[in-house]
Amino acid sequence: MLSIIILIGLSIIAYVFTDELIPKLSELFIKAGIYGIDLCKTSKERIPEAVGVVSGCVFLVTSFLFIPIVFGSSLMNREHFPHNEFAELLAALLSICCMLLLGFADDVLDLRWRYKLILPTVASLPLLVVYYVNFNSTTFIVPIPLRQYLGASVNIGFLYYIYMGMLAVFCTNAINILAGINGLEVGQSVIIAISIIVFDVIELRGDQYKAHCFSLHIMIPYLATTLALLKHNWYPSKVFVGDTFCYVSGMTFAVVGILSHFM
Amino acid sequence: MLSIIILIGLSIIAYVFTDELIPKLSELFIKAGIYGIDLCKTSKERIPEAVGVVSGCVFLVTSFLFIPIVFGSSLMNREHFPHNEFAELLAALLSICCMLLLGFADDVLDLRWRYKLILPTVASLPLLVVYYVNFNSTTFIVPIPLRQYLGASVNIGFLYYIYMGMLAVFCTNAINILAGINGLEVGQSVIIAISIIVFDVIELRGDQYKAHCFSLHIMIPYLATTLALLKHNWYPSKVFVGDTFCYVSGMTFAVVGILSHFM
Repeated sequence: MLSIIILIGLSIIAYVFTDELIPKLSELFIKAGIYGIDLCKTSKERIPEAVGVVSGCVFLVTSFLFIPIVFGSSLMNREHFPHNEFAELLAALLSICCMLLLGFADDVLDLRWRYKLILPTVASLPLLVVYYVNFNSTTFIVPIPLRQYLGASVNIGFLYYIYMGMLAVFCTNAINILAGINGLEVGQSVIIAISIIVFDVIELRGDQYKAHCFSLHIMIPYLATTLALLKHNWYPSKVFVGDTFCYVSGMTFAVVGILSHFM
Repeated sequence: MLSIIILIGLSIIAYVFTDELIPKLSELFIKAGIYGIDLCKTSKERIPEAVGVVSGCVFLVTSFLFIPIVFGSSLMNREHFPHNEFAELLAALLSICCMLLLGFADDVLDLRWRYKLILPTVASLPLLVVYYVNFNSTTFIVPIPLRQYLGASVNIGFLYYIYMGMLAVFCTNAINILAGINGLEVGQSVIIAISIIVFDVIELRGDQYKAHCFSLHIMIPYLATTLALLKHNWYPSKVFVGDTFCYVSGMTFAVVGILSHFM
């Protein structure tokens, strides 16, 4: 519980830091030629693009700084260190970091669409290995209307891993689809993040509290940095978030869904 | 042993793939405005900069694909899965991926130098946690001339972690310093990589063979992708490697040195 309070403190600092950093770095983006013109406005001002990389980096750094805190008590007792939980967190951060890199490269270089399908799939590989090793539950619950045909649950075995690999691709592109209206991509991500956090807090007393704690460790710093980004992306946008933000958000939701078992 | 042979096969594919990809993507770099002019040549041709991101990405993807192979036999026996070794590999890849992102962002945005000191330090944090949990040996061997004053070994405790954090910053900047002459950064990295691989192969029969196996898992795909990059960066350079390559190389050497205990 203490670690969550420290995390909230860290996340508030991350919010303030992101909020300060975005206007400062905006010039660098324009100077580097990474900008767009807002097509729905009469002013033809140049607006920095791909600023999602700033909030994404602060999100990652916050998560890194939080590692020694979340494993604080275990660090004193190295014999019983929970290596599997640590590997889970590392795999999650690795997948998110890969998407941050891919998204930024896409914004800068305008990659072909085939890379956008291959790379998220590869980036989710460490995640799938962690899932296989730690859980390997490939059963899904059948919706009530279909239960008379399929039973209460179905084990789809290896197909489940293909489903999870595709989930990562789906999530990243699902956020991207809403691009075009000021603040919509970021706004929907904030709403999704808040709903996941509320769900986690309610479930903290259940028997899956560890999984929901893990989800909170990822979602709280994500929400903080995304709120700071939303402030600058809100109509009239002073920055655009770019594919970078969509990819990071999609992967973050996919990671949390997969490793906290609610997707 | 079988896994090393598969890794060599994968790395040869990675070499061919990188070699094909670099000329194809070069246009994208120039179109995005990421290019430099070779100051030591009379032709004022535009040469794509930061192409190290291509070899770096292929290196990462190869390492990802290799994860299920290196843990292949352990995956069948999930009860005794070596979570600590898996966390080690994930932390190594996470640090390298962070540096790839930072390097590319630096090449595109021209970051201030203070970020170049802070970010590698933060990126090495997961590495230090892994080191603490798995080894926590903070003793160093004293060079022979000094032994009469200090004894055969000295335990410097917490200072050792500060030293390792600074090592990551040192390595990244040490490679960068040689920039300016065609092929020099990449050439020296190839020589360092080959010497580490030779050392690992010799030590494979020693009692530290696990650490040297780990080192080989990282260095072989690194060498393959770097050789492909060297081919295009060799005098007269058709591509520049940028800070991206220096950061990735420095972090790769730091990671291998720290986690295989020969630094």
